[in-house]
Amino acid sequence: MTTIEDFTSQYGLVRKIDAFGFMDHLKANPDAPRKHGKIVLVTADTPLKASRGEGKTTTTIALIDALRARGIDATAVLRQPSMGITAAGSKGGASGGGKASLTHPELIDWGLCGEMAAIAAAQNLLVSFAEKAVDEGRLDTILVPRVSEVPSRSLRSITVDAGKNDVAEKVVLTPTSEMMQIVVLSRSMDELGRRVAAMIAGTKDGHPVAFGEFVDLWRITNMLADAVKPALTETVNGSPVYVHGGPFANVSIGIPTLVSVEMACALHDVVIVEAGYGTDAGAQKWLDIACREYGAQWPSAAVVVTRASTWRDDPELAWRYPFHVDRLEKLDIPAFPLINLWEGEDDQIPALRETAASLGFREPIMGNLFRDGGDGLADQIDAFVDVLTSAPMPAARDSHKGMALIENIKWVAEHAYGVPADRVVLKDGFLASVGAANTLCAEAGLSLDDLALVAVKSPATMTDNDRAPESERTVTLKKVEVHAGAGLVHVNLTTSLTTPMPKIV
Amino acid sequence: MTTIEDFTSQYGLVRKIDAFGFMDHLKANPDAPRKHGKIVLVTADTPLKASRGEGKTTTTIALIDALRARGIDATAVLRQPSMGITAAGSKGGASGGGKASLTHPELIDWGLCGEMAAIAAAQNLLVSFAEKAVDEGRLDTILVPRVSEVPSRSLRSITVDAGKNDVAEKVVLTPTSEMMQIVVLSRSMDELGRRVAAMIAGTKDGHPVAFGEFVDLWRITNMLADAVKPALTETVNGSPVYVHGGPFANVSIGIPTLVSVEMACALHDVVIVEAGYGTDAGAQKWLDIACREYGAQWPSAAVVVTRASTWRDDPELAWRYPFHVDRLEKLDIPAFPLINLWEGEDDQIPALRETAASLGFREPIMGNLFRDGGDGLADQIDAFVDVLTSAPMPAARDSHKGMALIENIKWVAEHAYGVPADRVVLKDGFLASVGAANTLCAEAGLSLDDLALVAVKSPATMTDNDRAPESERTVTLKKVEVHAGAGLVHVNLTTSLTTPMPKIV
Repeated sequence: MTTIEDFTSQYGLVRKIDAFGFMDHLKANPDAPRKHGKIVLVTADTPLKASRGEGKTTTTIALIDALRARGIDATAVLRQPSMGITAAGSKGGASGGGKASLTHPELIDWGLCGEMAAIAAAQNLLVSFAEKAVDEGRLDTILVPRVSEVPSRSLRSITVDAGKNDVAEKVVLTPTSEMMQIVVLSRSMDELGRRVAAMIAGTKDGHPVAFGEFVDLWRITNMLADAVKPALTETVNGSPVYVHGGPFANVSIGIPTLVSVEMACALHDVVIVEAGYGTDAGAQKWLDIACREYGAQWPSAAVVVTRASTWRDDPELAWRYPFHVDRLEKLDIPAFPLINLWEGEDDQIPALRETAASLGFREPIMGNLFRDGGDGLADQIDAFVDVLTSAPMPAARDSHKGMALIENIKWVAEHAYGVPADRVVLKDGFLASVGAANTLCAEAGLSLDDLALVAVKSPATMTDNDRAPESERTVTLKKVEVHAGAGLVHVNLTTSLTTPMPKIV
Repeated sequence: MTTIEDFTSQYGLVRKIDAFGFMDHLKANPDAPRKHGKIVLVTADTPLKASRGEGKTTTTIALIDALRARGIDATAVLRQPSMGITAAGSKGGASGGGKASLTHPELIDWGLCGEMAAIAAAQNLLVSFAEKAVDEGRLDTILVPRVSEVPSRSLRSITVDAGKNDVAEKVVLTPTSEMMQIVVLSRSMDELGRRVAAMIAGTKDGHPVAFGEFVDLWRITNMLADAVKPALTETVNGSPVYVHGGPFANVSIGIPTLVSVEMACALHDVVIVEAGYGTDAGAQKWLDIACREYGAQWPSAAVVVTRASTWRDDPELAWRYPFHVDRLEKLDIPAFPLINLWEGEDDQIPALRETAASLGFREPIMGNLFRDGGDGLADQIDAFVDVLTSAPMPAARDSHKGMALIENIKWVAEHAYGVPADRVVLKDGFLASVGAANTLCAEAGLSLDDLALVAVKSPATMTDNDRAPESERTVTLKKVEVHAGAGLVHVNLTTSLTTPMPKIV
C-alpha cells in the first residue's frame, strides 16, 4: 500500500516530503486511507514591538505536545524563519524555546534545507532574464525586485549598471517576494509554473509583459524542486511538526504553504497553523486570503496568545487583545485566550483569570511554556478539546472576488482593525496608484478586483494611531502593487515599510 | 568500529559527509584502517571559448568507471557547478554527459544541497555587518564585495543606499568569493572561523580592520554547517563521486575542497581531481596553490583532455596543448593525452595517433566518452594504470612563500604560460596597487609575499596575445587584491574580468 513514507526522504536531520505527489496520490485514490484534520489557528495579540514575539511558536509546540498527551493526533505547520534576520541577530529564531522547542532549532533557524535560498535564486534569475529582455528590446521597465535573504538597509534603494545606464532598483527580503507567495499558494508544480508565467516582468511602451512570454519556465521550476517540499521535524517530546513557507504577515502573506497544511490535515486529526504577528496580521491573512480566496480550510478554533504584560500593562493599547478575541468569536471561531507566562509571573494567574472573566472571554489557558512545555497545559484544555472533537467541519466562507479594491480594504479596516469606512483615508496619489494598477491588470487580461488583497502594514500597529480613542483612529492607504502571478494586490498602509529590507541591529 | 558511514547522512538523492569529523577521527586514531590514494589531475587544453568545455567532467566520469572496471578502487572529486550560470542557460551543467554521467545531474547542476547559497549568504551577511560597523564608526570603507549566485552584468557596478549615501559597490559571483576560497582551503571549522576572522572587512582612516574585530563568528560558521560537508553521488555505473567546492579557476582558485580530496584519498586508491578550464588555469592552481602552499598532495599522473578539433584545427593556437603536456612532464607528472571524440570523429583516430607520436606524447587515450562511457577506455589505460600502481607517492614541492610577489607572478608566467620575465609588462598603476596591498598586509600583520598567488585571467587565453609568435607573447599585470582570510593575493592580468559577473546570454 502506498503511504506517506513513499513520498518522504531523509535530508540530513529532517525529512522532506513530496507533498504535491502525496496530494496527487490521494486525489487519484479517493479510497486511500486519509484523515480530515481540523485546523486550529494560533495567533496573537498585536506585539508591542516588531521584534518582540508573544510566544506563538512556543505555544504551538506546547499545544501539540499537550494534545498528544491527551491522545489526540495533533501536529503543527510552522513557517520557516528568515535566516537572514536570525543570523544578523535582529530577532531570535522561531523554533520555540525551553521545553517547548523543536529538536533541531539550529537547523530550522539557519536555512533549513536551502528552501529560502532557492526561492531567492529563482526570483533573482527572473530579474536577470528581464534584464536580458531589456537588452533585446522586449521590455523597457522591470517591475520585479531582486531579493536577498540577508538584511541590509542600504539595499532598499540601489542603482545597478552604475555609471552606464544607472537603473534604479530596490531589493526586498526573500520571504516577502512574489516567488515566496507563489510557493505558498501553489498546489502543484504546474500551478507554480503557470503563476511564474503570469508574473508581470515589467512593461514595454507602458504595456505589461509577463515572464511566460520570454522565460523557459523549467529553468525556474528546476530551481524550486526541493523548495516546494515541506520539512518534517519534531518537538523535543517527539511530536511531528511540519515547516514550510515564509514569515512576515505584515508585509506579505506570512502563512504556511497551503499544500503543507492540506497534507497535514490528511495525516492528522488536529493541525495547528501558526500565523505571523498579531491577529490583525497573520490570522487576517489566513482567513481572508488563504480561506476566502484560495480554498484553505476555515479554522475550527483559534488560540490567541499574549503575554501577561502585553495584555495589561499598556492601557492605551489594552483594547487590541479583546478586539482580536471578539472578532474571531464573531466569525464563529471559538477563540481561546492563552497567556504565556514568564518567569516570576505565576502569582498573577488569579488576577489574569478575573480580568478574562470580566472581559467575557472563554476560560484562559495559562502557563510558563518555556519552563513547563505541554505538561503545563494538558489539564487546562478540556473545553478546547471539546470544541475540536464535537463541532462539525466549518463551512467555506464567501470570497471577496469582484469586490472593488477600495471597498475590500475598507471591509478589512472595519473588520480587522476596527476602523469604519469613513475613517479610511486615501493619501494623495493612492487613487492614481489604483488607476495605474487597474490599467496594468486590464492589459494583462486580469481584473484588479479579482486579486486577493494583501494589507501591507506595520506588525506592531493596527491603525495610524492605535493609542488614540477608538473614534479617532484612522487607516491611511498609500499605494498598491500588483503581484499578478501570485494573484495578489498589495495595499500599503501609511505605517508600512514599503520595501521590507531591515538594517541589522 | 567507527567507519565513514558514521559520518555520512542521506540528503535527499545524495549523501553528505562530515569530512572534518572523519579526518579528525583518522588523526585521533592513527591505527584506524585507511587508504593512501594517489591523485590524478584531470586537466585540459585551454578552451577556445570560455563557455566551451573540452569534456573534463565527462572524461573524469568515464575514467573512474574504466578504472573500476579494471578492479581499481577509483573515485573522483568534482566541483559543484555554478547553478546561476547553468540555470541562466549560459553554459551546460557540469555532471558529464551520455554514458559518462552522474545519476542526478538535475540535482548537482541545480543547487545541490544549498552549499553555494549558504556561502553566498555568509559573505553577504559579513557585508551587512560591515555596514553596521560603518554606522558605528568602526569602519569607513568596505573592501568585501556582496556576492550573487545568479549572474547579472548590471550588478558589476552598483550604488547602494542610493539617494542618501550613494556607496559604490560591485557584486561578484559566489564561486569566486573569498568565502568560497575559505571553504575550499579550510581543514576544520576552527580554521574556517580563524580565516573568516582574518578577512579584511575594510579600512578605518586607511588602516585595515578584520571581521574578527567586530563579528560574532558563530553566526557565520552556523550558516556554513552543511556547506562544509562534501556530497557523495555516483556515476550511472555506480562509481562513487564526491562533489565539493566551486568552479572558475580563471578568476578564483576553482579547485575542489582540500578536505574532500583528502577524505577521498583516505577511502580510495585513486582519486581523480578535476581542475577548471585549461592546464594554465585549474591545474596551475592545484599545483602551485593547493600543493605548494596548502599541503595538498602532488599528482601521481595527469590526464590532459582535448577535443580533436581544438588540438588541430586552430593552427595559431595549436602550440598550447603540447605546451601543457610538456610542462606537466617536466614537473615529473606523467601526462596522458586524452582525446574526447565527438560523433563522426572516430575515423580521425589514426591521424590523431600519428600527430601525438610526432609530438613525442605518450600514447593518447581516445574515445567518444559521451557515447561509450568508461567502456571505451578500459582497454587503453594499461600505461596509465601502470604509472598509478608502480610509482612511489610523490614528494611535496617547494613553497613560494616569501618570494616577492612580482618574482612569483613572473615565475608563473614563465612556467605556466611560456612568457619569460622580460616580457611580463607592468601596467600603469600596478606597482602602486602592489604598494597599497603591501601596506594593507603589513598593517594587518601579514606579509604580502607570504600569501599564495592567484593569477586572475581569461579562461580562454594564456597570454595577452596567444596568436602571436612565441617570441612576441606578453603577460600584462594590472592590479592586485588581497584576500587575507583565504591567505591569497589575486593578481589581475589584462585579459581578466576583474569583476566576474557575467551577463546571461
